[in-house]
Amino acid sequence: MVLPGRAMATFRLALIQLQVSSVKSDNVTRACGLVREAAAQGAKIVSLPECFNSPYGTKYFPEYAEKIPGESTQKLSEVAKECGIYLIGGSIPEEDAGKLYNTCTVFGPDGTLLVKYRKLHLFDIDVPGKITFQESETLSPGDSFSTFDTCCQLLVYPGAFNMTTGPAHWELLQRGRAVDNQVYVATASPARDDQASYVAWGHSTIVSPWGDVLAKAGTGETIVCSDIDLKKLAEIRQQIPIFSQKRSDLYAVEAKKP
Amino acid sequence: MVLPGRAMATFRLALIQLQVSSVKSDNVTRACGLVREAAAQGAKIVSLPECFNSPYGTKYFPEYAEKIPGESTQKLSEVAKECGIYLIGGSIPEEDAGKLYNTCTVFGPDGTLLVKYRKLHLFDIDVPGKITFQESETLSPGDSFSTFDTCCQLLVYPGAFNMTTGPAHWELLQRGRAVDNQVYVATASPARDDQASYVAWGHSTIVSPWGDVLAKAGTGETIVCSDIDLKKLAEIRQQIPIFSQKRSDLYAVEAKKP
Repeated sequence: MVLPGRAMATFRLALIQLQVSSVKSDNVTRACGLVREAAAQGAKIVSLPECFNSPYGTKYFPEYAEKIPGESTQKLSEVAKECGIYLIGGSIPEEDAGKLYNTCTVFGPDGTLLVKYRKLHLFDIDVPGKITFQESETLSPGDSFSTFDTCCQLLVYPGAFNMTTGPAHWELLQRGRAVDNQVYVATASPARDDQASYVAWGHSTIVSPWGDVLAKAGTGETIVCSDIDLKKLAEIRQQIPIFSQKRSDLYAVEAKKP
Repeated sequence: MVLPGRAMATFRLALIQLQVSSVKSDNVTRACGLVREAAAQGAKIVSLPECFNSPYGTKYFPEYAEKIPGESTQKLSEVAKECGIYLIGGSIPEEDAGKLYNTCTVFGPDGTLLVKYRKLHLFDIDVPGKITFQESETLSPGDSFSTFDTCCQLLVYPGAFNMTTGPAHWELLQRGRAVDNQVYVATASPARDDQASYVAWGHSTIVSPWGDVLAKAGTGETIVCSDIDLKKLAEIRQQIPIFSQKRSDLYAVEAKKP
């Protein structure tokens, strides 16, 4: 995401590790309550987890899906405006023209919808005896980026890893992305529910551009907070100048129009 | 690198964590001795570390640099043939037309030079109070890839991290690359010499495509060995099918001709 203005060199980021239940309206109400709490703690950017208003599972998506704008995102818009914060709305199952998507919305401090992003790479996994899950059974992938900004300073991933990929890859991948790109990385997971059909890993985390874990939740419902220091980020980019060393004469990463 | 034939589904890889001294001929002789030892242990691919025939430092590169083919690479060719192995010659300072490069050579079981790769991204770092080092003071970067193969199954990085980046990034980055690309990753470091002007991190490591550390050296001179199982790799690629999920309609990574 693009950060809110160059003047804000340091700001507080909060992740809401929501305990997702089977009652949609209750999920949304508690999410908004925790967003208010995080804002009261000084957070200027707050993120909800992936699939925050619905249990995570292909059998749930058709039932819980809604339009955007719709009831859940309307509440997000209102609480973002009420608190004067940037709110990354994790994701919700979205229905549009008969198709379902795993969609992230971002709202500005005035309540306007800034970004709508439909998950591009659906999560399909089949580890025999461990976990089998195919988002692609019911979801369709998106077809566009929400941003393609090479000066990115903060990556926020609302994500729901599981008990197989969680211990193996959750922290590793975010620390790797942080160092590779010299950015802050934050991941917002749902809280763990051992009775759910898909058990989320939890452990929402904020990582520095040097790869250090700045804050990390346990498995329960909680708010994770850290100050994000863009001066520190600028220093690290000066210390190891990987951006000026890119060899654009030899390779390129390019976004295509679909 | 491209692997030696599809028939070889499992083979042994060895990394030589060489204690590099200031005597070039001694470095080369000991390197070849350890390569013979690794081959005797059944290794079919053996890698030496970055800058294995010279102390690592910009002041050393002009003195230790040589042509390719030259005395050091001639010895590598001979020992590869003698042992009937693939030998990744770490790197040496190379001199060509008045310029210096940090160059990796790879020899086949018949002693032929298969690959010559000049480091593309030179290592420049300046962390105040910790470490300042600029390869670009004396070295020139290469201008071509040694390979651009998207079916890669094993990445071998001869590398010399230091006491600042080593603890922070050495294991993280190789585990990240392994999971990102679902490949085996191996890193061959020089052994640590606390008296050297540039103190190498050591800890040569072999990582599985799932991100697990299969073998890891301490800081001293040693051989690190692990069996590489390409059936296991194929299984992981089936379990989490990231390759078939690439969105080539939306983005591309492209190699350019310089």
